[in-house]
Amino acid sequence: MIRVGIVGYGNLGRSMEHAIAQNDDMELRYIFTRREPLSIKPITADVPVIATGTEFKYCDEIDVMVMCGGSANDLHTQTPQFARNFNVVDSYDIHAKIPEHYKKVNDAAKAGGKTAVISVGWDPGLFSLNRLISKAILPHGKSYTFWGRGVSQGHSAAVRSIDGVLDARQYTVPILNAIESVRSGNNPELSTRQKHKRECFVVAKNDADLMKVEQEIVAMPDYFADYDTSVYFISKEELENKHLTLPHGGFVIHSGKTGDNNESNQVIEFSLKLDSNPEFTANVLAAYARAAYRLNSEGTVGCKTIYDIAPSYLCAESNDVIIRMYL
Amino acid sequence: MIRVGIVGYGNLGRSMEHAIAQNDDMELRYIFTRREPLSIKPITADVPVIATGTEFKYCDEIDVMVMCGGSANDLHTQTPQFARNFNVVDSYDIHAKIPEHYKKVNDAAKAGGKTAVISVGWDPGLFSLNRLISKAILPHGKSYTFWGRGVSQGHSAAVRSIDGVLDARQYTVPILNAIESVRSGNNPELSTRQKHKRECFVVAKNDADLMKVEQEIVAMPDYFADYDTSVYFISKEELENKHLTLPHGGFVIHSGKTGDNNESNQVIEFSLKLDSNPEFTANVLAAYARAAYRLNSEGTVGCKTIYDIAPSYLCAESNDVIIRMYL
Repeated sequence: MIRVGIVGYGNLGRSMEHAIAQNDDMELRYIFTRREPLSIKPITADVPVIATGTEFKYCDEIDVMVMCGGSANDLHTQTPQFARNFNVVDSYDIHAKIPEHYKKVNDAAKAGGKTAVISVGWDPGLFSLNRLISKAILPHGKSYTFWGRGVSQGHSAAVRSIDGVLDARQYTVPILNAIESVRSGNNPELSTRQKHKRECFVVAKNDADLMKVEQEIVAMPDYFADYDTSVYFISKEELENKHLTLPHGGFVIHSGKTGDNNESNQVIEFSLKLDSNPEFTANVLAAYARAAYRLNSEGTVGCKTIYDIAPSYLCAESNDVIIRMYL
Repeated sequence: MIRVGIVGYGNLGRSMEHAIAQNDDMELRYIFTRREPLSIKPITADVPVIATGTEFKYCDEIDVMVMCGGSANDLHTQTPQFARNFNVVDSYDIHAKIPEHYKKVNDAAKAGGKTAVISVGWDPGLFSLNRLISKAILPHGKSYTFWGRGVSQGHSAAVRSIDGVLDARQYTVPILNAIESVRSGNNPELSTRQKHKRECFVVAKNDADLMKVEQEIVAMPDYFADYDTSVYFISKEELENKHLTLPHGGFVIHSGKTGDNNESNQVIEFSLKLDSNPEFTANVLAAYARAAYRLNSEGTVGCKTIYDIAPSYLCAESNDVIIRMYL
């Protein structure tokens, strides 16, 4: 059995507990939290909840730690810190800062003789994998990534930050015409506005100026100004009834040409349709936690990305079995 | 530059020549054939064509051989034979016999200190990769593979073997209702007949009994008896005008459940839409030829499948670059 620890017990940490339970070769040993441990009620009643800062006492009892904090506030410090004493896996998702995160985690993991796998989830993660493989196979081609329809937590928070807004949920919506054009092998040039639109469901305060709130949302730079954005004002009840789950997904489509005169279109498409973004991310983390543990058992140390890991490491079964069952 | 040799110069070998030309870090050095070398006219006029059997003379001039013969008649003997002296990659696709092929190739490659990658194409190959990764991520789930719409060369040959048939082309067609049912997360039980249908375009001899030919086709065990099969009799001209290319493709869809009460559907889908099956297979082989060469340069020898190869090996770019560009 692979003995797993969870660090951070929010949406992702709770989903992680279910993900571990789905894998017969894994057992959850401890949950670590920065909150008061007694305030946490794990789904599995007998799992001890421990305050972070004392985790070094548990080095011999944990094969791999799954880092379930947020990228901006937690992972950028927690993953390097834990990687010194534990094999770790995280879903660090601030694309621009991944090289810097990689370096810090790599130094820590190498110093401790541990194995760290960073930025695994679905994007970065499975989508990244498909972008790379598609490009390697069809070098004379172009990749497109579409996200959604799904809840963006960053954009939802941006709407909530506006004066007059009580609560809000933002959906990123891929534009179907654009997807169809890419699938047809046209390799179109698409602007930001042509690829996605945004839908905001907003609970306003009683005295809010709705016109003003809407204008502030659609004009917000980076988040909304470059998109066609629809704003719908709804009641608190409607938000709680219809917008409580965190669905997401998307498409990576790569199309390239081959043949005597580049006359053949070849289209590779990978897509996800997820009822729950955090639950799916947790399941991806579980598979890569297995890989981190197995790589370390073989003596491979340092920081790894999804690109460094042979697919067989994700699976509990032996090579003979996976060749017979899946090849 | 990676110096590549092609073994076998049919549809796949010819496509391989184009595939190598698309990769800036590869150069085609030699083509090996069992036919009379003078009968072969490569696309690149100055590539020497050499008779198989003398390939051992070229050991020092070739980094990796791409085996482009057929599975049943060529690869089962050629790949082990070449793996003793060269790094090799093949697209061996007789699923039931892969373990036996693996063993023979592994023994030969290890004896010669070479690296062999077998059964890479799209199925087995990219589809296998997606079946494994999906299962690892959603262990409580089910995978479905649909093929087509595309030309099956084996089924076309089966039709051609019938008395009264001059020429024929068989298309495997996935049934859209079945795909939709799988995508919805229903995890349906689907019979062979419910997943695919078959369409045969047949050029009959002048004196053929068409009714009898059709009955023989639809009743043929293994190939057609378990499917709804449509037979269309067409002229030689129509076959040559409309059915000369080799399109193919298909879908691997995996759907699984997560959540407190398994209430979340999570669907992973990978699909290919290929204008040319051999040209795409050649491009996959080129990427894995790079991997075979690089693994061998690092001292990894023996037989590998798509499951043993970390994705970064497929790419000419450095790790720093792929993290920045694709992660």
